[in-house]
Amino acid sequence: MPCKRPLTAALAAGLLLSAAAHADEGMWLPGQLPDIAQQMRQAGFRGDARALADVTRPPLNAVVRVGGGTGAFVSSDGLLLTNHHVAYGVIQYNSRPERDIIDAGFIADGRADERPSNPDFRVLVTVGFDRVTDEVLAEARGLDGRAYYDAVEAAGKRLVADCEQGDEVRCSVANMDYGSDFYLIRQLELRDVRLVYAPPRAIGNYGDEIDNFMWPRHSGDFTLLRAYVGRDGRPADYSPDNVPYAPPAHLQVARNGLHAGDYAMLAGYPGTTFRHRTAAEFDAQVRQVLPQRVAVFDALIAAVEAVGRDDAEVRTRYAAQLQTLKNRRKRAAGELEGLVRSDAVRQRRADEDAMLAATRGDDARDIAALQMVLAQGNAAGEGEQLLELIASQTQMLRSALLLERLRIESAKPDAQRERGYQQRDHALIEGVLRQAQRRYAPEGEKALLTVLLGRYQQLPDAQRLPAFDAAFGRTPAALASALDALYAGTTLGEEAQRLSRFEAARAAQALADDPLVALAGPLVAAQLQAEDARKTREGEQLRLRPAYMRALVAWRASQGRAVYPDANGTLRVSFGRVEPLAPRDAVAYAPVTTVAGIVEKHTGQTPFDAPAPLLDAIARGDFAGTDEPTLGSQPVNFLTNLDTTGGNSGSPVLDARGELVGLNFDSNWESVSASWWFDPRTKRAIHVDMRYMRWLMAKVYPAPALLEEMGLPTR
Amino acid sequence: MPCKRPLTAALAAGLLLSAAAHADEGMWLPGQLPDIAQQMRQAGFRGDARALADVTRPPLNAVVRVGGGTGAFVSSDGLLLTNHHVAYGVIQYNSRPERDIIDAGFIADGRADERPSNPDFRVLVTVGFDRVTDEVLAEARGLDGRAYYDAVEAAGKRLVADCEQGDEVRCSVANMDYGSDFYLIRQLELRDVRLVYAPPRAIGNYGDEIDNFMWPRHSGDFTLLRAYVGRDGRPADYSPDNVPYAPPAHLQVARNGLHAGDYAMLAGYPGTTFRHRTAAEFDAQVRQVLPQRVAVFDALIAAVEAVGRDDAEVRTRYAAQLQTLKNRRKRAAGELEGLVRSDAVRQRRADEDAMLAATRGDDARDIAALQMVLAQGNAAGEGEQLLELIASQTQMLRSALLLERLRIESAKPDAQRERGYQQRDHALIEGVLRQAQRRYAPEGEKALLTVLLGRYQQLPDAQRLPAFDAAFGRTPAALASALDALYAGTTLGEEAQRLSRFEAARAAQALADDPLVALAGPLVAAQLQAEDARKTREGEQLRLRPAYMRALVAWRASQGRAVYPDANGTLRVSFGRVEPLAPRDAVAYAPVTTVAGIVEKHTGQTPFDAPAPLLDAIARGDFAGTDEPTLGSQPVNFLTNLDTTGGNSGSPVLDARGELVGLNFDSNWESVSASWWFDPRTKRAIHVDMRYMRWLMAKVYPAPALLEEMGLPTR
Repeated sequence: MPCKRPLTAALAAGLLLSAAAHADEGMWLPGQLPDIAQQMRQAGFRGDARALADVTRPPLNAVVRVGGGTGAFVSSDGLLLTNHHVAYGVIQYNSRPERDIIDAGFIADGRADERPSNPDFRVLVTVGFDRVTDEVLAEARGLDGRAYYDAVEAAGKRLVADCEQGDEVRCSVANMDYGSDFYLIRQLELRDVRLVYAPPRAIGNYGDEIDNFMWPRHSGDFTLLRAYVGRDGRPADYSPDNVPYAPPAHLQVARNGLHAGDYAMLAGYPGTTFRHRTAAEFDAQVRQVLPQRVAVFDALIAAVEAVGRDDAEVRTRYAAQLQTLKNRRKRAAGELEGLVRSDAVRQRRADEDAMLAATRGDDARDIAALQMVLAQGNAAGEGEQLLELIASQTQMLRSALLLERLRIESAKPDAQRERGYQQRDHALIEGVLRQAQRRYAPEGEKALLTVLLGRYQQLPDAQRLPAFDAAFGRTPAALASALDALYAGTTLGEEAQRLSRFEAARAAQALADDPLVALAGPLVAAQLQAEDARKTREGEQLRLRPAYMRALVAWRASQGRAVYPDANGTLRVSFGRVEPLAPRDAVAYAPVTTVAGIVEKHTGQTPFDAPAPLLDAIARGDFAGTDEPTLGSQPVNFLTNLDTTGGNSGSPVLDARGELVGLNFDSNWESVSASWWFDPRTKRAIHVDMRYMRWLMAKVYPAPALLEEMGLPTR
Repeated sequence: MPCKRPLTAALAAGLLLSAAAHADEGMWLPGQLPDIAQQMRQAGFRGDARALADVTRPPLNAVVRVGGGTGAFVSSDGLLLTNHHVAYGVIQYNSRPERDIIDAGFIADGRADERPSNPDFRVLVTVGFDRVTDEVLAEARGLDGRAYYDAVEAAGKRLVADCEQGDEVRCSVANMDYGSDFYLIRQLELRDVRLVYAPPRAIGNYGDEIDNFMWPRHSGDFTLLRAYVGRDGRPADYSPDNVPYAPPAHLQVARNGLHAGDYAMLAGYPGTTFRHRTAAEFDAQVRQVLPQRVAVFDALIAAVEAVGRDDAEVRTRYAAQLQTLKNRRKRAAGELEGLVRSDAVRQRRADEDAMLAATRGDDARDIAALQMVLAQGNAAGEGEQLLELIASQTQMLRSALLLERLRIESAKPDAQRERGYQQRDHALIEGVLRQAQRRYAPEGEKALLTVLLGRYQQLPDAQRLPAFDAAFGRTPAALASALDALYAGTTLGEEAQRLSRFEAARAAQALADDPLVALAGPLVAAQLQAEDARKTREGEQLRLRPAYMRALVAWRASQGRAVYPDANGTLRVSFGRVEPLAPRDAVAYAPVTTVAGIVEKHTGQTPFDAPAPLLDAIARGDFAGTDEPTLGSQPVNFLTNLDTTGGNSGSPVLDARGELVGLNFDSNWESVSASWWFDPRTKRAIHVDMRYMRWLMAKVYPAPALLEEMGLPTR
């Protein structure tokens, strides 16, 4: 892969940024905000940071988890704003051949016309967020390795079980700062969520994959839902008798928009970041993990394409998987490119060296021990990555492994079973086993395994498991004949064969004979052994990383900076400003787009097939009340330097007074590496301008009642 | 093809620009400049426009034709600056396997080391430019149609023959304003031109096809040559005894560069534009010619690719032709896209309607007659385009047609033969016949003809020639069997068979029998008939278009504007300013690039494989004396709104004082349609900043003697 060169020495010198340059980095826990109130005020915030400190109080309890993303209540009657792509399943669920609301969009004709969501769609309102560090670590203290890991796991499971009384509340334990702190989160689980307003696909997803990760964007990626509860005000399954949920708080949509330099902030549920990983982990990511990932995806893509060239069945059945492989390959390459461009390894190393020089005593000793554990994990290297892919990229081998593991776990009491194999997971497992059919052809799976196991064979002895050597041999020829024999002999290709074994496995009974099932026995045993080693290392990391975090917090404090915990799916707040982007020499992107760009991109072909009513409305030019006066046009999307990652989809963007000005939905391509490294020169988040939503709802696909409900002008 | 929508009515309203908006449009004849001196001065020109009026005097006689482009003398010793891509043949000619100067670049080690160019490379210095309208039209007046055409042709040939006495001077007659005026141009033909300094390919052609037509650019697209003459000062073939040519003038390279808004002007030899064509011709171009061209290229590309999929020989032999087809398809699509985006047809129509409303008398009558002739030509329609492609896109059918036509023409006295078939053209024809081999496979040619003749069969009767119907039938089945029989039977695939017939044809003797040769008889006869009709129409256009041009000049004068003649390969001057580009909503391109962009684009792979000495020099950052202070870096390329088209490659760009600040080498993609319509919002030209050349020659690949010769600092 042609890698970009790192920045030249002369330019890179300017990269060793002062603390000021980091002012915009941070996915803060709400509880931290009072500590950085001055910094927020300097950035332009006009509210009281203390009012943002409690996730269970207004305004932050208006921000909720919706499906796989974030959303916010925007009326006292449970009206909920999120992304079109977050609510896509709900839209799809209500679409019919005779009325395709994906393409046409949907406006409920009054509340009675609001449509139920797919049954597994949930809205989660945080009602409790309590520190339980002592409870989680009580049993673990004094232990190490696997025992430490198991003690933490067991304490967490206990806390969740105690918390989840009744079916209203879902509980979870959040691990903050890599084992330093734990929080018990209680969330009200709203199960009756309805579709209220969705723009047509060609507005909500204008540009689709082509524009994904791109700026300038022109997408109306929003949808309005409404949460309902039983007449008693408690969460309930869908019923026509249910009533709108009265949220504890809701956000007010702003009348005005933002301009370059204006303060902005965002609240949401970012998934995972790695910003506080060690320099050695950064180094491994850039030198080893990402290049290997790119290489193995390249090989898998080439293998599937080669088989598909002369085999129409493989082409059809592996089309979706091929697309996913290409997307993951692209992301890995983008992440690598970004980390190299930002010179992240060198900067992280310099930062860590300085931190370690300032660290003494027990923490210094624990950090040294942590580095050893990480080095061991690193030595496990590509092997673990390949084992994961062998299970996730196949259908029949994966089915066999899944069945065998289910059989083993099912022999234990439910509470002690590995996550993913408990009673509540059975429906999911059954779904996987049923769907295996549609995405399987023997020649396709053999081609994938030839790549993965071929690479596995090349690994040094220490990284391989003997059971895999025994099963697939040590040479390409042995592998080929093993795979031929396995796939000629297995009957798992028939759904009934898999489902009958599923019944046996969940009852912890022996599985009927089959070449793949027979193989799964020793392979799963080997996996369990590897898993034990991994959990032992993870236990040590859980025990030792808090020392690293303490040292980091102390080091940052000496620089006058606070430390936010790496993202872990809990509610975070980031703040910054509307900011243009200069991605390359002589190229400058303005931070606000207008409807002119919709017309420019329009080709009439998906995904640039702007609907006629939209084009007509743009041509009419009636933007009164929602226009951007400095541009003389209707704004569509805007760009900020807010700190986001996956999971922030649908996050509300607020102005200096806390009014809702935007809806987060994407980031630029240069931000792909931001999960590891925040580069202020290139990290941007992309938002729907609320004025675009208001204009669409007022002038293009009118919904005056909803505008009124949100306290907005209806024209 | 998905066409872009025209701009919306609201936006388009802003497009009906006042005369002021046209201030930057114009490829002016030098003789016109005194008339627009005030306009030039307002734009920022600080010199005397009268000094630019004579192409045979300084400074404009420093601007010369070089190869297929433009160049300028930059020292009193014949040192000549042009583009790397204009001089590419000379560089290639001197490259050897053991010393690849294309890749490595070349710096002559003193004058004795300057390398000869390929023998057909020429530099033309204009020494005479005289109006000969009366002489050209004397015999034509009173005639019409074909007779008018022949009279103009004959008068032109006579003037050229009288002018070209001896072998020093090449003469030509330029048709200005479509038959309104004629000029006899005398050019000194310098035949000994040597290579002096060429940067490595990865500098001179950094970005190659990927960056072609793109801004921001980062290319050092320049090369220095030197013209030599005999010791008597007269043009001579290469000889080691020759001496440097003392040009009548040379340009001074500037010490400083330009900034956004600064005045700039450019002199060069633009090839062909269509700006003053009628509204009906614009309409036909957008509705008919360009869509047909895109469609037929698409079909040809698909046909060659389909045959090549299973036929490696076809793939190899048709690779170059396929690339050319794709490039032409891309250009046609880009031209169409640009004309639609600029709403050119509607604007040209509104302009012409207003002009016609103001036109009376004989001119009004002649313009009406012209519109009739153009409508007739339009009716010939796709047929002529297909006949041209049938000859140009095939090898064996083209050879047969060429031989037959040569046989017919050779029966006439040489002076009366059609251009292209005279004695002096025989070498070229022989070359075509020899090279046919390398780009031919029967299945490839049949596939191409199946497309072209298949479309031809679909044309209405009036557009088809009976001879073609007779030869290829009226149905796909008939066509297929005709082609199979022809290509199974022909022996023209053997070079000897073509060359023996070439000897016969040039002696006007009968050609030995062959299926394709037999077919060529009636086909060429039909072509001659079509050619006669076309020349009759062209004669009428030559006779009638001057009325249209008179009306246009009068109409523009009433708007306070002068009219430049459409480009026709003669020396023109355009002026304007350094100007950024805002190509799309929220996207802005700065008008000056820096070396930072070279590093950003560098991948190590062609065409982004910046040489190590360049990357090292950028990293060192020693830009003293050639930097751009406002950017704190070394500039590379810059962008102006100057009016250019093909042929302007290598044109010198001058500042307000007439000093050489840039070298034109490309334009942006949005300018592809500028051959028909100058859209000031998007028309840009791309230049090498002379400071980049100076920096490379001072600090990266040093040539102090050459800098000194140009009167520039050597460090």
